[in-house]
Amino acid sequence: MLNTDPYKGVRDFYPEDLFVEKYIFDTWRKTVESFGYVEYDASILEPTELYEAKSGAEIVNEQTYQFIDRGGRSVALRPEMTPTVARMVAARRRDLSFPLRWYSIPNLFRYERPQRGRLREHYQLNVDLFGIPSIEAEIEIISLAYKIMQNFGAKNNDFEIRISSRKLLNAVFNNWYELNPEQSDTLRRLIDKKARMPAEEFQQEAEKISRKAFNFLDFAKDSADYQEAMAFPEIREAKTELDAVIESLKKQGIKNVVLDSHLVRGFDYYTGIIFEIFDIDPKNNRSLFGGGRYDDLLTIFGGDKIPAVGFGMGDVTMENFLESRKLIPPYKSSCELLVVAMDEGSKEFAESVAEKERAAGKNVALNLTYRKIADQIKRAAKQGIAGIIVIGEEEKKSGNYKIKDLK
Amino acid sequence: MLNTDPYKGVRDFYPEDLFVEKYIFDTWRKTVESFGYVEYDASILEPTELYEAKSGAEIVNEQTYQFIDRGGRSVALRPEMTPTVARMVAARRRDLSFPLRWYSIPNLFRYERPQRGRLREHYQLNVDLFGIPSIEAEIEIISLAYKIMQNFGAKNNDFEIRISSRKLLNAVFNNWYELNPEQSDTLRRLIDKKARMPAEEFQQEAEKISRKAFNFLDFAKDSADYQEAMAFPEIREAKTELDAVIESLKKQGIKNVVLDSHLVRGFDYYTGIIFEIFDIDPKNNRSLFGGGRYDDLLTIFGGDKIPAVGFGMGDVTMENFLESRKLIPPYKSSCELLVVAMDEGSKEFAESVAEKERAAGKNVALNLTYRKIADQIKRAAKQGIAGIIVIGEEEKKSGNYKIKDLK
Repeated sequence: MLNTDPYKGVRDFYPEDLFVEKYIFDTWRKTVESFGYVEYDASILEPTELYEAKSGAEIVNEQTYQFIDRGGRSVALRPEMTPTVARMVAARRRDLSFPLRWYSIPNLFRYERPQRGRLREHYQLNVDLFGIPSIEAEIEIISLAYKIMQNFGAKNNDFEIRISSRKLLNAVFNNWYELNPEQSDTLRRLIDKKARMPAEEFQQEAEKISRKAFNFLDFAKDSADYQEAMAFPEIREAKTELDAVIESLKKQGIKNVVLDSHLVRGFDYYTGIIFEIFDIDPKNNRSLFGGGRYDDLLTIFGGDKIPAVGFGMGDVTMENFLESRKLIPPYKSSCELLVVAMDEGSKEFAESVAEKERAAGKNVALNLTYRKIADQIKRAAKQGIAGIIVIGEEEKKSGNYKIKDLK
Repeated sequence: MLNTDPYKGVRDFYPEDLFVEKYIFDTWRKTVESFGYVEYDASILEPTELYEAKSGAEIVNEQTYQFIDRGGRSVALRPEMTPTVARMVAARRRDLSFPLRWYSIPNLFRYERPQRGRLREHYQLNVDLFGIPSIEAEIEIISLAYKIMQNFGAKNNDFEIRISSRKLLNAVFNNWYELNPEQSDTLRRLIDKKARMPAEEFQQEAEKISRKAFNFLDFAKDSADYQEAMAFPEIREAKTELDAVIESLKKQGIKNVVLDSHLVRGFDYYTGIIFEIFDIDPKNNRSLFGGGRYDDLLTIFGGDKIPAVGFGMGDVTMENFLESRKLIPPYKSSCELLVVAMDEGSKEFAESVAEKERAAGKNVALNLTYRKIADQIKRAAKQGIAGIIVIGEEEKKSGNYKIKDLK
């Protein structure tokens, strides 16, 4: 006898569950399409090597589902969509017209212990803008992320947009801390984990990398160190760019934007502005989603850089957020009407009624089981069907019928 | 330098490709929802054992992607959806209200040599009606399949609905050919392959199973053998049921229904009426999709039988069919309008125009790159965007602007 459980860490979507999922997807689609983004898609199967170059060591080695196919190829279930979209854009870089506004809602796989907000399979809205090297791209992408939160009904005091810059971090690491690229990567990954480790451990680990890195340069706050660091042109330029993005967003009326020097983001491929949407409810204090600029990623396929800014927004974290704010609409079946024939003699008229209501644009189920009417009504109501039409001798004779409201 | 090809046998969906895919999915959704079916979904990852019981040996052993996860579990990428929906229904059989009209559009995986109409990953509409033991279920499901073909613009002389019955086949194999269940399975699988092997080989193989099976009983045609076989009550009953389904469909105006005694369908789990929609174009003579009754499948999870009738309809075969009949609509970008600012000075007015058009329900991209206007127009037209608004000094002063048609 087989077990009816799904595979560990993945979800079954019964109609009521899929209703919520579709609400999230529809809100995503409506918002990003209103900004002129068009949808693309790809397979969940990708050559493993696609992730080895730039995704970050932890993600590829420890967390990716991979296997060898019968032809000896190493195949991965995609853990993220950015390498795929980079591959697709790189493949047609000569034919595509830039700027390119693209989105997708792929399912992604991570092999990790299932926990709240982290499943082995989840869906993620991916939005990317290719071909714009200036901060107009960051501003558009972050405004769009903000607009999505608004369209879900989130208020400014529900969340915060935290912004930083990989360019600025690298400039500080390089010029101020005097780290080599390898040390910079190590320090960046350490900062990424900072919130999840004891302060003392962080200090010890940071000190191992560099004495200077021990005194974290918080460029969100004005300080003597910071003033000194700003003498380096590379640091100054990156900071000016970051300030310009924040200022422009505030000018658009987006007030909940803050500079966060501890924000680094996990993926290796970011090159410029990075951002995260943060849930500021003290009971649910966590990153909801984020993104940033990754101008170099397409060069792994050869050819020149293509400027790119994007973000990914997961369905599970979004659903948790919406639940905690009571922003999920109640279930409604896509089936609007049930037509029921009382007996064999009413069958043909019942069929014609169902056809007529369908022709009028309604979604209509037709039951020709001749079971007890009270029972059929109870079952339809339980399924969330809004109305029922019962067809018997009388309706057949008169040609008239009524819709009974089931709510 | 990384290759930009997708994994072998799967597809990248650029916006133009996804447009076709969405057209197919939308037509599916619209039609099945009009019959009152509601959508469900599940993960592509399933325990391998789910397929071992009933899917058919060839499919599980030779054609399924499977691997062992790090927890030692054998996992499969689902090769078909029916076992999943059976699992989901079985898991909540006490809470669900029957009849249950469910559909899904899952992606399915088969490890086989890619060829026309057969990829390693494809999407398939799955429609199932649970809880109706009588032929009303078959009639509804086959009418719905017919309606889908109509809604794609297919004519009656484009395709044929071929119908048979596993119950009838089994009754003939058992009573007339006097085969045991194992021999019956072997013969059924042989008939399934008949069209793909030389006639002589089929005869030789059939003779190995039974002398009697050598003379194929074609119950689609009246013959002395057939008259004799009809003396067996089991055969007679199954044939009467099959005739009743065909008659009822014809009465509904579905004229292209034929009884096909050679139709057996690949999966082991069918128990009653089976059917296939066949492309009757001589250049493309092939099965488009099919389904049937599978009343026993849910018992693999324990508990009683649940009557079930359903079908699966693939996107690749459907797209080939639509292409051959020129039934695919031309590409239209979901982005309807591009707003372009000529210079920094026009930026704010351009932003307000984009906002205004979005508020009016339009999907609007906004370019603040200040590149050559002629070039931006060319690129927008190439992307399939329908219209462009250029904002410069003049528009800013007057507050008026025009939409330029790009088609």
